[in-house]
Amino acid sequence: MAKDKAMVIFQPSGRRGEVPKGITVIEASRLLGVDIETLCGQQKSCGKCIVRIEDGRFAKYNIHSSLSHVSPWRKQEQEFISPELRGKGFRLACAAVVEGDILVFVPEESRAGKQVVSKAARDIHIDHNPAVKLYHVEVTPPTFEDPTADFERVCLQLKKAYGLKNLTADLFTLRQLPGALRDGKWQVTVSVWNDREILRFRPGKITQAYGLAIDVGTTTVAGYLCNLATMEVVDTVSMMNPQCQYGEDVMARITYHMTTPDGLERMSADIIEGINALIDEAIANTHPPRPKKRKKKGGVKPEVDRDYLRLSREDIEDIALCGNTAMHHILLQLNPEFLGVAPFPPVVHHSLNIKARDLGIRINPSAYVYVLPIEAGFVGADNVGVLVAETPFKSSENQLIIDIGTNGELVLGNRDQLLCCSCATGPALEGAQIAFGMRAAPGAIERIAIDPATREVDYKVIGRDSWRSYSQPEEMQVKGICGSGILDLLAELYRTGIVAKSGAFNKEALKDHPRFRINPDTEQAEFVLAWAPESSISKDIVVTQKDIRQIQLAKGALYAGCKILMKRLGLKNVDTVKIAGAFGTHVDAIKALIMGLFPDCAIEKIQSIGNAAGDGCRATLLNTAKRAEADWCSQHVEYIELTLADSFQMDFVEAMEVPHTHDDFPHLEGLVSEEILKQSE
Amino acid sequence: MAKDKAMVIFQPSGRRGEVPKGITVIEASRLLGVDIETLCGQQKSCGKCIVRIEDGRFAKYNIHSSLSHVSPWRKQEQEFISPELRGKGFRLACAAVVEGDILVFVPEESRAGKQVVSKAARDIHIDHNPAVKLYHVEVTPPTFEDPTADFERVCLQLKKAYGLKNLTADLFTLRQLPGALRDGKWQVTVSVWNDREILRFRPGKITQAYGLAIDVGTTTVAGYLCNLATMEVVDTVSMMNPQCQYGEDVMARITYHMTTPDGLERMSADIIEGINALIDEAIANTHPPRPKKRKKKGGVKPEVDRDYLRLSREDIEDIALCGNTAMHHILLQLNPEFLGVAPFPPVVHHSLNIKARDLGIRINPSAYVYVLPIEAGFVGADNVGVLVAETPFKSSENQLIIDIGTNGELVLGNRDQLLCCSCATGPALEGAQIAFGMRAAPGAIERIAIDPATREVDYKVIGRDSWRSYSQPEEMQVKGICGSGILDLLAELYRTGIVAKSGAFNKEALKDHPRFRINPDTEQAEFVLAWAPESSISKDIVVTQKDIRQIQLAKGALYAGCKILMKRLGLKNVDTVKIAGAFGTHVDAIKALIMGLFPDCAIEKIQSIGNAAGDGCRATLLNTAKRAEADWCSQHVEYIELTLADSFQMDFVEAMEVPHTHDDFPHLEGLVSEEILKQSE
Repeated sequence: MAKDKAMVIFQPSGRRGEVPKGITVIEASRLLGVDIETLCGQQKSCGKCIVRIEDGRFAKYNIHSSLSHVSPWRKQEQEFISPELRGKGFRLACAAVVEGDILVFVPEESRAGKQVVSKAARDIHIDHNPAVKLYHVEVTPPTFEDPTADFERVCLQLKKAYGLKNLTADLFTLRQLPGALRDGKWQVTVSVWNDREILRFRPGKITQAYGLAIDVGTTTVAGYLCNLATMEVVDTVSMMNPQCQYGEDVMARITYHMTTPDGLERMSADIIEGINALIDEAIANTHPPRPKKRKKKGGVKPEVDRDYLRLSREDIEDIALCGNTAMHHILLQLNPEFLGVAPFPPVVHHSLNIKARDLGIRINPSAYVYVLPIEAGFVGADNVGVLVAETPFKSSENQLIIDIGTNGELVLGNRDQLLCCSCATGPALEGAQIAFGMRAAPGAIERIAIDPATREVDYKVIGRDSWRSYSQPEEMQVKGICGSGILDLLAELYRTGIVAKSGAFNKEALKDHPRFRINPDTEQAEFVLAWAPESSISKDIVVTQKDIRQIQLAKGALYAGCKILMKRLGLKNVDTVKIAGAFGTHVDAIKALIMGLFPDCAIEKIQSIGNAAGDGCRATLLNTAKRAEADWCSQHVEYIELTLADSFQMDFVEAMEVPHTHDDFPHLEGLVSEEILKQSE
Repeated sequence: MAKDKAMVIFQPSGRRGEVPKGITVIEASRLLGVDIETLCGQQKSCGKCIVRIEDGRFAKYNIHSSLSHVSPWRKQEQEFISPELRGKGFRLACAAVVEGDILVFVPEESRAGKQVVSKAARDIHIDHNPAVKLYHVEVTPPTFEDPTADFERVCLQLKKAYGLKNLTADLFTLRQLPGALRDGKWQVTVSVWNDREILRFRPGKITQAYGLAIDVGTTTVAGYLCNLATMEVVDTVSMMNPQCQYGEDVMARITYHMTTPDGLERMSADIIEGINALIDEAIANTHPPRPKKRKKKGGVKPEVDRDYLRLSREDIEDIALCGNTAMHHILLQLNPEFLGVAPFPPVVHHSLNIKARDLGIRINPSAYVYVLPIEAGFVGADNVGVLVAETPFKSSENQLIIDIGTNGELVLGNRDQLLCCSCATGPALEGAQIAFGMRAAPGAIERIAIDPATREVDYKVIGRDSWRSYSQPEEMQVKGICGSGILDLLAELYRTGIVAKSGAFNKEALKDHPRFRINPDTEQAEFVLAWAPESSISKDIVVTQKDIRQIQLAKGALYAGCKILMKRLGLKNVDTVKIAGAFGTHVDAIKALIMGLFPDCAIEKIQSIGNAAGDGCRATLLNTAKRAEADWCSQHVEYIELTLADSFQMDFVEAMEVPHTHDDFPHLEGLVSEEILKQSE
């Protein structure tokens, strides 16, 4: 990376990119297509743009350092950010200037922009039944008449008082017992894992225990520190996956393993160290901030000592962890090589209970890491997390759950049967392989609206709040079109009769339209989205017939996957569509339906479910019944290899068309005019 | 230790002591009261005195070095010792000269001396049911139709072929699977622990697996390398317990822990390193010896490549381990402090299954160490080993099992009920607290016979083969009396009417005897065992009234323990007496009965059972049913605190008397004359 650039990642959207150093975080958000609320126009006076900032990839080495990758704290921020939040890294996005790699977490209340029906990350219902529970017992001291050993003495009481039987204790735990019993005057609090194994003895009566849910993404890693007794989320921490240095996507990392001696060990060690840093950070957040150096004489009043938890590593007594199959295998040092070769078998499906110490994760030395199970080579533990959070296996309605990155994972079904598949959507939906496609960066078209009557184009670019219709041409500085613009594009082209159901330009209807033309060089039809004067590159920004094909291929792969799953289940339609992850937050439900991204569904039943994998992971931390559900999912959700379906070729070709009858898409009624439908026949 | 002295320990007797450097091993054995067979009078021509020699406490750092603590190999040894045995450290005891600390293992066939009915260490019957079993499976390779993960693929076949269900795999094991499956062309051999957890995947079909039984004694550590498939003992290895440097007995080590920061961790680390060295040695013995440096041109023929096993650390897939409660606690770093304080509760009774890696024991990384359970603070896992080997809980006969060191452990009962206790025999039986008591060393009286008619004393000293009656007085060079002599002493004094049942000298009967006198200085009665001219210290070697009291106290503690256990069970006599360990090999059954060391029993039913703890440990390695028995023992053998018995004081006082009626001791009939019995009334 150039020295004058910095990598910025926004959470929870996952949007990332290089930005010039010296711009504000809010400017960086505009460059990268992230909408942060702002009312005062970056005057630092409205306080709407509060974000939490962390150092980027160097965070793990440098957790407690000052936030050196952004500019120093400014006086105006004080009005909106309390000292406590300041201690946790909160800043005004319009005040903090990017000076190095950073990770920016945008809290729900600071997010702007219209999203499809949004589901708050934390309102899923979880019953309370954590794997690690606390039991308090008091025993009589040993005597000559009853010189029973400490362990059996405590076990007997645990049996009497709580019906716990056949308990074992980890050796590291057993070592604590004689001291704990005597320090506690023969009263101890016992942490018991799955009613089976004792993980901790503490003197006296204690009521709190803590655990961590960790979602290991290909790009980012998120951790939720939870109170196992109250289910409260004490803190949320996140960081870049340190493996990014070995390759941005899953296949690049598998390749790194196959081409580099110790590559697997190195990538594993890096993510483990990353997780340790994340744990350090979560723990540090439970301690009061270090006293500041006094700058003025007379100085600042010492801060009030709040009700800090002051946790130590030993206080983390459970971890639940999920990730896609490759992240799972690499973290556990299970050879991921065969995930990349047909028929893509993973090493293991089952969930795993691994001592944290065996992974090098530094929490309570006796604690387990529960690793969610895997459905298939390309449908991983993260997808199991989504299922556990959304529980389609309990629903009478047929749910379609979509999780899209470079690869799309689909789950379809209800309590009777669930199918899953992986479909190769390719990178077109992210702007790649499109003539003027580009990353989400300043000048990229991110929203498009076309007038059905005049077929004139209105649009919005990253880096400018006003749409084209409210701006002077030269103010737009268009460079290209990014992923979120592409998601609008096909729907708008079709809805306005510019392209037919086949994706072909309606040459007849367009023949006199100023924006439609045949490019003399390529002899390809193209449609102008922005004229050269609106562009910063003095070129017309166009969408070509080939571009439309690329978008169709991507949406076709997804749709065909849905269709094949529906056929297998004998379904004509689905009741609910749930879109997980960052992609979901950018999808406009209506346009997605118009372009036929997925089968017909009532608009109000199309939901974005946010980081459902993380929610599901947290659910398994707090409720062991969810662990049973997870294993059930990995065993009973049937994996369908799309390419083996007899109808695959035909379905795929058909799926490339946009929806064009109200029979298949009754919910399109009123969204696309009868005229258009007729026209596109 | 002085520079010109070396520490020598003999196995399996456990006899130890300092000897001058430069003497032969056979001379050292004489000094320390160990009987090694020799016919040729140390001429290196009979080959009867073959022993195995190991470096002493430095062995662990220097396993593969030449045996620098003894003199070089001599040509005459070649005739009796094969190159293979030579490679394992076998030597002629009359040829090898002590040059530093050594451990000497005396094989059964090289042991001399009359022992009570001896039981070969290895002829106990063990059913074959090891915790680690091998299963071979062949699976079909994954296809698009069946892309099941490697692990579930193998598990399914293990279930089909062998009915194994709900198997888990250690993470370290799981890492081997993809490679093993593909290297073995979809055939693997699976090591399964307790039908529950997979410990190892190996490509192809393999039929052999290995395990180690380890007996951690306070002084010595013995290991038995076993083939888990054939039950064969492949090798026996032993070494000094490296903890000896912190104190010779259990209490000294507990004190070291309590007075030294990190003392516990240090002692634990040392025994773990010792065990690792022992494992290294056992493994090295399965490889061909390193080629020798050629000393002459033309040189030695390369050795024939025998059928060596060539094991690696990974090939050791199971360990069973026992030791007394303190050794157990120290090895596991369980605080042993409270073992030393009434009421002496241990930390845990249960057997433990601990991953070898968590103890730092370097074998197969997924393997478990099974640690035998504990009966009580002073009745440890070694005693459980004895019980598992001897199975008194299956016997209809009442068995009394005695295991004596500084402390005595007793078990009494049959299949209906078993009691155990610990009795403070003190060190008198080992020669301490006796006027002329001494360690087993040259000049120590080790056998005594007194003529009932003349009350003249005949005896044998360590370092001289001939008895007094076959020697000139000045040849005897007596210095004192050691443990094995003391065991004869009280029986002989009583049998010949020198002392009465109370232990008091029969002053009336002895009044004119030249060997009996009142010491004018101490005004105490004493009896001369050896006259000054026979002594190397120019003094009469005597036994005093006080000495006899000390011996009575020791034997009384043991006998009272037996008696209290018998009372609890309502027994008048016991059917069998089994004496475990080194002590047993020195007991003369008849004399022990005469002196009343234990209750009456038929002479032929008094057995020495050798290292029964080690045998029992090996049994648990090879048969999991024995592990269940061990846990049963630790839970059901009732610990009796002797000092709490109402009758303890009286029993103890009574027990100090020697047996004096044929009513209580019918088996004494013919061993002690009626006249003596009358006289002693």
